[in-house]
Amino acid sequence: GALGGLGLALALGLWRRQAALAAAREDEEEKELRQRFMAPPVSGLRELRRRRRELRSRMELLIMETQAEVCRALAALDPGASFTVDSWERKEGGGGISCVLQDGEVFEKAGVNVSVVSGLLSEEAARQMRSRGKSLKAKDGKLPFCAMGVSSVIHPKNPHVPTMHFNYRYFEIEEPDGTKQWWFGGGTDLTPTYLNEEDAIHFHKTLKEACDKHDLKLYPKYKKWCDDYFYIKHRGERRGIGGIFFDDMDSPSKEEVFQFVKSCAKAVVPCYIPIVKKHCHDSFTPEEKLWQQLRRGRYVEFNLVYDRGTKFGLLTPGSRIESILMSLPLTARWEYMHTPPESSKEAEILEVLRNPKDWVH
Amino acid sequence: GALGGLGLALALGLWRRQAALAAAREDEEEKELRQRFMAPPVSGLRELRRRRRELRSRMELLIMETQAEVCRALAALDPGASFTVDSWERKEGGGGISCVLQDGEVFEKAGVNVSVVSGLLSEEAARQMRSRGKSLKAKDGKLPFCAMGVSSVIHPKNPHVPTMHFNYRYFEIEEPDGTKQWWFGGGTDLTPTYLNEEDAIHFHKTLKEACDKHDLKLYPKYKKWCDDYFYIKHRGERRGIGGIFFDDMDSPSKEEVFQFVKSCAKAVVPCYIPIVKKHCHDSFTPEEKLWQQLRRGRYVEFNLVYDRGTKFGLLTPGSRIESILMSLPLTARWEYMHTPPESSKEAEILEVLRNPKDWVH
Repeated sequence: GALGGLGLALALGLWRRQAALAAAREDEEEKELRQRFMAPPVSGLRELRRRRRELRSRMELLIMETQAEVCRALAALDPGASFTVDSWERKEGGGGISCVLQDGEVFEKAGVNVSVVSGLLSEEAARQMRSRGKSLKAKDGKLPFCAMGVSSVIHPKNPHVPTMHFNYRYFEIEEPDGTKQWWFGGGTDLTPTYLNEEDAIHFHKTLKEACDKHDLKLYPKYKKWCDDYFYIKHRGERRGIGGIFFDDMDSPSKEEVFQFVKSCAKAVVPCYIPIVKKHCHDSFTPEEKLWQQLRRGRYVEFNLVYDRGTKFGLLTPGSRIESILMSLPLTARWEYMHTPPESSKEAEILEVLRNPKDWVH
Repeated sequence: GALGGLGLALALGLWRRQAALAAAREDEEEKELRQRFMAPPVSGLRELRRRRRELRSRMELLIMETQAEVCRALAALDPGASFTVDSWERKEGGGGISCVLQDGEVFEKAGVNVSVVSGLLSEEAARQMRSRGKSLKAKDGKLPFCAMGVSSVIHPKNPHVPTMHFNYRYFEIEEPDGTKQWWFGGGTDLTPTYLNEEDAIHFHKTLKEACDKHDLKLYPKYKKWCDDYFYIKHRGERRGIGGIFFDDMDSPSKEEVFQFVKSCAKAVVPCYIPIVKKHCHDSFTPEEKLWQQLRRGRYVEFNLVYDRGTKFGLLTPGSRIESILMSLPLTARWEYMHTPPESSKEAEILEVLRNPKDWVH
């Protein structure tokens, strides 16, 4: 009786100790991740750990890591400013974390946004997907979906530092018969106010290296897709000097596409940060600032008139408008009939925006 | 012989004299019209005179007159600045006259545009019309059309002077069986940075009076249409405090609708100019200027994301982009998560943009 009771007490004590140790390990892990990330992930660390082998969890960790890496690299260049971090929930399911640095010394507006949302896809949204070739069997016009991604636009103050955009995303749709469709999309692209060939080459080369590790066909294909996608049709110009862009990527396998996306995400900091460092103290004239503002206007035109991500976001009920429109610059300008003089630096960049160049061959 | 010859010579002389007198009269008329208008009309004065009884000609004269009236009224308030007048041709048929005053003392950007275009309607454009209820029988997907209108956006510098927009247009489509569909559209609306109730009442009252001369039902109907049309869905706000807006107006008769449109066009100057005069020398703070810039951002959002005229223009091949996008402000601003403090003047206008008011009852 007494011995048995002692044995039970010891066993219970041992179990408690082990449980406490496991909890401490988890706390430690959680603390570490919390320090690494800008905010706790939407799905919760515990849940992500529980389903750590699922691609959804690994992708959510990747976008959280990317957000933190980029924010830290930017903040290090703009010590006076700091990121505002907003965690938000979507009442229809999921949420996100928006990090924005506004009106700093180096950056006019830098936003890095993570969102992890799920729910039922509206008919309008499903129709938009179908129009680009996805065949989806809907039931009552509603499809359960899960979408997650990291997206970012960095608008620097100095007209000699280009604007950079990147976005990496993962999409899953469940059809009425239970089959799941999935695909990845993403890209990184540069929008300079003035052309600097050395920077353009560095940017494209870094992206090419990230692609080449996976398949030599990827960079040329996605470089062209980028030039085609960021086309401001009514102006006959691209938004910038491109980079890579892809969508609906669902082969060769989930794992391989994920590894490719990971390489691209890891390339964001090395392809952009050296360019910012190099030029953020360049001197500039009021005329150069004005040209930057006019180019900002074109950026707004592309994003509001053509960008599919923005349009999709504005259409999705419950989407967070402030996070979608944080891609817009702090300030922009439109002048009637502005045309830069021939052979000027302004005409030089326009020429490249009208006729995209091959930067790495 | 000699007498006959003399008679003939006299007759010829008389005829020559009469022809010369007629030509002089025409020259005089032409000179007068040329002075009255900002530029020679697209269809030519001679051609307009030849078919002076046709509604198309009368509408073209009305839009030319309206352009000149408004430009003159604006120029009188901004003596240091002047309108740039550009006549342009559309290679697919027709053309236009764009008058723009930029960076004046009173006006940041004021554009008044006339366009008179004809040709074949693209399938995409026809589809857009069909989607709003127009039933059009196309043959090979192409429909001959004629469209003309005057449109204008006035962005003043002082945040206490509201932005004003108006547009009056006429559309004709010929179906394969030869029947012609026609309709008028238009409207005038006000976008203040700060609410001034007296101005709002004056503006709406002036428009109501113009409408009431024709039918008491028009103002309430078109006031509501205006509030509904200028809705920035993703913000839950209207672009401004409204005015009137209508489209597809094709009854009771061509003549009656034209007379109504004429009354509206004639109301532009009296509904707006007194407001500009009253406030263009008001003092303002940098914070008020900043709020104006943020509201300009919303103006851009509406025009690029929702405005049917802009979207239609950007889709139409050969349309003049500079004339379409002259509606955009000279400068605009987007701040992440900007919310004005409660009970502020900024919150006051937001309240009215979220819940439109009845200004005349």
